[in-house]
Amino acid sequence: MMKIIVDVFSGDDPKALIRGTAAAVNVYPDVHFIMPGDPTCLERELAECDYDRSRLEILPASEIIGNDESPTMAIRQKRDSSLVRGAALLRSDPEVGGMISAGSTGAILCCGIFVVGRLRGIDRPALAPVLPTVNGGNVCLIDCGANADCRSEYLAQFALLGTSLMRTLCKVDDPRVALVNVGVEGHKGNMLTSQTAALLSEMPVNFVGNMEARDALSGKYDVLVCDGFVGNVLLKSIEGTAANVASEMAEILRRKMPGGAAEELIAEAAHEVMRNYDYNSYGGAYLLGCRKPIEKIHGASNERTIPYAVGQMRSMILAGLTESIASQLEEMSRGHGETR
Amino acid sequence: MMKIIVDVFSGDDPKALIRGTAAAVNVYPDVHFIMPGDPTCLERELAECDYDRSRLEILPASEIIGNDESPTMAIRQKRDSSLVRGAALLRSDPEVGGMISAGSTGAILCCGIFVVGRLRGIDRPALAPVLPTVNGGNVCLIDCGANADCRSEYLAQFALLGTSLMRTLCKVDDPRVALVNVGVEGHKGNMLTSQTAALLSEMPVNFVGNMEARDALSGKYDVLVCDGFVGNVLLKSIEGTAANVASEMAEILRRKMPGGAAEELIAEAAHEVMRNYDYNSYGGAYLLGCRKPIEKIHGASNERTIPYAVGQMRSMILAGLTESIASQLEEMSRGHGETR
Repeated sequence: MMKIIVDVFSGDDPKALIRGTAAAVNVYPDVHFIMPGDPTCLERELAECDYDRSRLEILPASEIIGNDESPTMAIRQKRDSSLVRGAALLRSDPEVGGMISAGSTGAILCCGIFVVGRLRGIDRPALAPVLPTVNGGNVCLIDCGANADCRSEYLAQFALLGTSLMRTLCKVDDPRVALVNVGVEGHKGNMLTSQTAALLSEMPVNFVGNMEARDALSGKYDVLVCDGFVGNVLLKSIEGTAANVASEMAEILRRKMPGGAAEELIAEAAHEVMRNYDYNSYGGAYLLGCRKPIEKIHGASNERTIPYAVGQMRSMILAGLTESIASQLEEMSRGHGETR
Repeated sequence: MMKIIVDVFSGDDPKALIRGTAAAVNVYPDVHFIMPGDPTCLERELAECDYDRSRLEILPASEIIGNDESPTMAIRQKRDSSLVRGAALLRSDPEVGGMISAGSTGAILCCGIFVVGRLRGIDRPALAPVLPTVNGGNVCLIDCGANADCRSEYLAQFALLGTSLMRTLCKVDDPRVALVNVGVEGHKGNMLTSQTAALLSEMPVNFVGNMEARDALSGKYDVLVCDGFVGNVLLKSIEGTAANVASEMAEILRRKMPGGAAEELIAEAAHEVMRNYDYNSYGGAYLLGCRKPIEKIHGASNERTIPYAVGQMRSMILAGLTESIASQLEEMSRGHGETR
């Protein structure tokens, strides 16, 4: 039976995430759950839930890594934290398929690098959410926040990781890779994008050129490559703008169509649109480039996030994503001599 | 009488912009217009327009700087281009208050630096649109694309420029300056933001800390400081997302409320919202930090853009923006010893 670790204690509201994990036990009968954390606290909260206890195991861990701690220091000093214990088990137990954590990006990245370990050929694991496009498809944004300062070699590796992810998870044969830039023209950009564009055009990925941020969700691209700072700004501005625009349009329509029936339909529509852009409710973002799959869910995730994230992790494990990435990296580096 | 230069030839559709300028002549009876460019082409197009010819002057210029040219090379080699001729007149004629150009950001920036000249204390002029916030206010995003690679000193100067702009143009007493970042926590960010945050907290601006991209238009800030790459991604992702969300919500509502009357109101509402986020139709972005005001309008601007942009430029000149920025820079550097 597939084993998945769920680290709830690194999040803002562990209790809600514990209830969410119990709910996930019921949704996925083929998954065995492991929860690192304080047993007393876990038992107390789980006692209130109705679920199959035989498929939920507690991994004692007395410490919690907070969102405001220095990631490298915290990983080194808090060996008995839920995140480090979970990562160590993920690394050592071949039966454990993956880990979901509500911890900070920095702490998860450090655990991925120093505890779980990187795949051969990867300098920096990257955070990659898969977002819905306007034409019903998907696009992978990599990196969306793990590496604020990047070298062009990292971005080139992100292109490989994103390509593998979209091939494996979304069954896209030859993912179109675009470089997030300030213009589509070749000469536009900063030093990082100029160097990256040169590298990408030499790599065994389907590099289609520069992309302007307004086309991120256009469906014209499958993988969007950028440094973690730019990716984070892009993702959050999409989220924020979607919420603003949906409310503004609802407000305008309520003035144009006063009355109860219309009001309800308008509210429903606004809600529906916002849900499409609320990446928090989507589950998580994949930390790609480590030896085992890790999924980061938002610190402010709620009960409903967990079953969704477990579903995503389960799919990744079933699809053999990491093995597939590793073999594609191997193949690419063999086929290409080297990637750097 | 106030003189404003309008460089239409650097845009995608000069003819439309010529008609737009003729329209602006009629809208602003207190403005004298100067159009650099090919006299034959200008006369031919203007012959079709109905406007007060006594307030429109042609400044012969035989060349055009294209969007795909290297800015520094183009400025040096095309001395007789509409942009360079306009910039030279802006520099030399005290009666000319400002220039509007549809040229590329790079070319306009180069003209600003090498032809018009920078204000004392400014290393890099920056492009700053003033955007509407969700609560009916305004926010200045600086830099939104002039400087793709920045040092922290540039960003610190952007904070000064944005502060002056919001004081002068929007009458905000003590503009709240935020640093665009990946999290509000002090330790988050990349090398550039860490260095910039340290500088900003020592400067005579009202630095309120980091801002996440989702809060850009929240109205909690008056000036958003970032490098031109990040600013451009932020601006374009807001534009793109707004258009996507408005169409999606209209689509959902059309399904929920079939019928002609509702359909029309929904289309109207979508149109109204999109207009708020179509920064192209807004007129332009200010190139701040030069000795005279320059306004960049989008290359794809249309006829209606010009009167709007002229209105903005006219306000800037009437408010004495550049003089005010210069004196505030002077005062800040006096009051603070030095800004670097």
